[in-house]
Amino acid sequence: MSSEQATQAAAAAAAAAASTPVEKAAPAQSKKQSKKSKKQDQQFLLKTPKGTKDWADKDMIIREAVFGSLSSLFKRHGGVTIDTPVFELREILTGKYGEDSKLIYNLEDQGGELTSLRYDLTVPFARFVACNSISNIKRFHIAKVYRRDQPAMTKGRMREFYQCDFDIAGNYDTMVPDSEILKITTEGLTGLGINDFKIKLNHRKILDGIFQACGVKDDDVRKISSAVDKLDKSPWEAVKKEMVVEKNQPEEVADKIAQKGIEEMTILADYVEAFGIEKHLSFDLSLARGLDYYTGLIYEAVTAASAPPTNASELKEKAKKETKEVEDASEYVGVGSIAAGGRYDNLVGMFSNGKSIPCVGISFGVERIFSIIKARAAKQLEKLSSSQTQVFVMAFGGGEGWNGFLKERMEVTNKLWSAGINSEFLYKAKPNIRKQFDAADKSGSQVAVILGKEEYPQGQVRVKVLGQGDDSDEGDLVKVEDLVKSVEVQAI
Amino acid sequence: MSSEQATQAAAAAAAAAASTPVEKAAPAQSKKQSKKSKKQDQQFLLKTPKGTKDWADKDMIIREAVFGSLSSLFKRHGGVTIDTPVFELREILTGKYGEDSKLIYNLEDQGGELTSLRYDLTVPFARFVACNSISNIKRFHIAKVYRRDQPAMTKGRMREFYQCDFDIAGNYDTMVPDSEILKITTEGLTGLGINDFKIKLNHRKILDGIFQACGVKDDDVRKISSAVDKLDKSPWEAVKKEMVVEKNQPEEVADKIAQKGIEEMTILADYVEAFGIEKHLSFDLSLARGLDYYTGLIYEAVTAASAPPTNASELKEKAKKETKEVEDASEYVGVGSIAAGGRYDNLVGMFSNGKSIPCVGISFGVERIFSIIKARAAKQLEKLSSSQTQVFVMAFGGGEGWNGFLKERMEVTNKLWSAGINSEFLYKAKPNIRKQFDAADKSGSQVAVILGKEEYPQGQVRVKVLGQGDDSDEGDLVKVEDLVKSVEVQAI
Repeated sequence: MSSEQATQAAAAAAAAAASTPVEKAAPAQSKKQSKKSKKQDQQFLLKTPKGTKDWADKDMIIREAVFGSLSSLFKRHGGVTIDTPVFELREILTGKYGEDSKLIYNLEDQGGELTSLRYDLTVPFARFVACNSISNIKRFHIAKVYRRDQPAMTKGRMREFYQCDFDIAGNYDTMVPDSEILKITTEGLTGLGINDFKIKLNHRKILDGIFQACGVKDDDVRKISSAVDKLDKSPWEAVKKEMVVEKNQPEEVADKIAQKGIEEMTILADYVEAFGIEKHLSFDLSLARGLDYYTGLIYEAVTAASAPPTNASELKEKAKKETKEVEDASEYVGVGSIAAGGRYDNLVGMFSNGKSIPCVGISFGVERIFSIIKARAAKQLEKLSSSQTQVFVMAFGGGEGWNGFLKERMEVTNKLWSAGINSEFLYKAKPNIRKQFDAADKSGSQVAVILGKEEYPQGQVRVKVLGQGDDSDEGDLVKVEDLVKSVEVQAI
Repeated sequence: MSSEQATQAAAAAAAAAASTPVEKAAPAQSKKQSKKSKKQDQQFLLKTPKGTKDWADKDMIIREAVFGSLSSLFKRHGGVTIDTPVFELREILTGKYGEDSKLIYNLEDQGGELTSLRYDLTVPFARFVACNSISNIKRFHIAKVYRRDQPAMTKGRMREFYQCDFDIAGNYDTMVPDSEILKITTEGLTGLGINDFKIKLNHRKILDGIFQACGVKDDDVRKISSAVDKLDKSPWEAVKKEMVVEKNQPEEVADKIAQKGIEEMTILADYVEAFGIEKHLSFDLSLARGLDYYTGLIYEAVTAASAPPTNASELKEKAKKETKEVEDASEYVGVGSIAAGGRYDNLVGMFSNGKSIPCVGISFGVERIFSIIKARAAKQLEKLSSSQTQVFVMAFGGGEGWNGFLKERMEVTNKLWSAGINSEFLYKAKPNIRKQFDAADKSGSQVAVILGKEEYPQGQVRVKVLGQGDDSDEGDLVKVEDLVKSVEVQAI
């Protein structure tokens, strides 16, 4: 998929949409959020919980366009979608996330099973594969995950956010599904109009070999991995100090381990050439990925043009108060990373009595991708509206005996609905003309159907194209029975 | 939308889909769910939490078709979608659900704000409207809600399930948005092929008048409402005993209250005629709806042909063990109810310092609707598969020097992907012919592209239409550069 197609996808979403029916009577949420509202004796803190937010309006349109683009991509590669519960038995999640396990949200023990909100979509996927004794599947899953990140630590990361995952489970030949995952990662980003990215690659077995050579104890490998992962942000001296603890392993063992990884990377190089994606890949020994479960190839797509975290406005506000803390921006965990994943061959086995199913997958950081697209499309978005109304049905009249044609407008609108045409009318018995045009404008309707006081009783209505800036145009007079046909020509 | 269109929607979803890439190596989840799996010292109970389930395969296709049909409907009526966090500040939910508040899932107090999983989509919507100072909106929201129902009480209700809501907020003329909501309810159900339903109507003010006449104290009204709501299940005597407590209110007050409701119902009768939905409506004084927040019109769509709750298989299994409990099926809360809602004019005001925005809405019980559609479409579903693959790329060959054309298959598949064609190939270096056809079959591909040992090096491939039952047909020999064009003709 080319970037043109991505732009088209966004444009399609834009074209399909056509109004802002959310009329705000006062300033936007960010300002209102922290305002307290009083009711009787109760004090409501009127906001969403820390680290969460509402989605609406244009943000929602962009989000749906992003999800739509990625879903089509996944289907193009034979993927099927699944849905798992938002919480899992707590023991399913235990011991899968290393140090990050402390960020898991637990549900209150209200009697019965102990459960926790999912931390990612990978562990629930492995549980699903084991639960259903699946031998192979290409699945995608777009859903929210939950992490109790401390704002002080990660500066603005959301606690509820979307992940968008594609994984291939099954026993296959070395690096074949892995290379397709890299292809999907590339297509996913270019398909959304993001072309200035690199996918950093590394291999756990190469890393493990190096760690062994450095004398890192097996038990310490994952801890050290986290340290190495910071190499592009911290100076080598700091990382080395953390890494080189003791040296008591024979060098040949390390060589053997690393050798396997190097062989696989050579095979991979051949396949990614067939998929034509070499130019986006770069081998990077400093890439380690913190999670416990990776066993082979690991990768992370980064972009130079990365946008700030989604709640940038919040960050700015904070910056005013605590300038020092925010200046230290190098501590953002993974700024610039817009997709990441790897091979995890042992995770399913942890759930299925050791009978493991090898897996490899990619997770798109859709919230960050969303910010990039939003920043780039800012201008086009101004014109966007969030409803998809095509026709607004109005009544013109006044004076003695004028009843506002409410029932008549309902009947005409009903006719349009039956023909599958998105239509609205004003919920007022006697609406004035200006208010009807205002509402039509806000709804984004392209066409007005007007019931005139004299014309309608004679079986005629006017069909007027909106947004032409020509107020003198009264529209075409058509018979009520020809209305649908006439509107279908004008709207779209 | 006609039932034909609904069938078309389902058929479209069916046609778009084409395989079962989920290969099961063993029996399905239900049997496996309760099986314990042992790993090292840990004991995993390999299942989803009580009252939750995974969605996959054909269920997922039906669900997406149902959501798609309802989303189009909502957009046809000018609706926009929003998304709110899965958990809210606990105080937002407090005092909104009457007796059912005990079913709210709390998140563990891990320090910081106290939060709970949303119980429905209505209270979060009211919070959203208040938070953003919205004066009017037509919004829809399709998402999961959470209720700690005790299986012993409700027999098989899910604890995590989808709701599909459309609500209109704003100050409008009496019964105008209300009648459109009833229109949407009707279209929603007929649009899914469900035509044998009735929408029971009642008005809170008529009920309140009656209660006053009966001498029910204000504080007891909601409690009594719950009792009345059981009228279609329990004998009148039992309900009356619960209702008639004391009589000390003057009758004229009651008359006045009820009068307002009766007036509104008369206006409504006029409007629903304009929308052509009278035949589906019936006034039912026994309808009360348990929730605290309703203030005007209330309604519930019921179907004779209602299916059992979604986890029917679980119920059956239980039935074997505890026959008595399950026979008492009359206790199912709302069996037969497939959509319900009403007017709630004071809920937003509870969040916004008393400045209220009147609201009216409908919630579709999509899980129950899903069961009905699934039961009716059982036969068509047999042929369905969940992936949407169009083309399977294969290699034919063998003998000396045969390398399996893995890289070549990758290149050809890549070409198809670039043209937007959903394509797969087998992840094996040297795949055998039978296994490639099996995989193509499971993927639901309509077309095979075959790279022959002699033909491909000469720049030619075979394009063979699958599922014709004619194994002798070798397909058409085409030049590689004409492949995309040729495939586009064959696949759809």
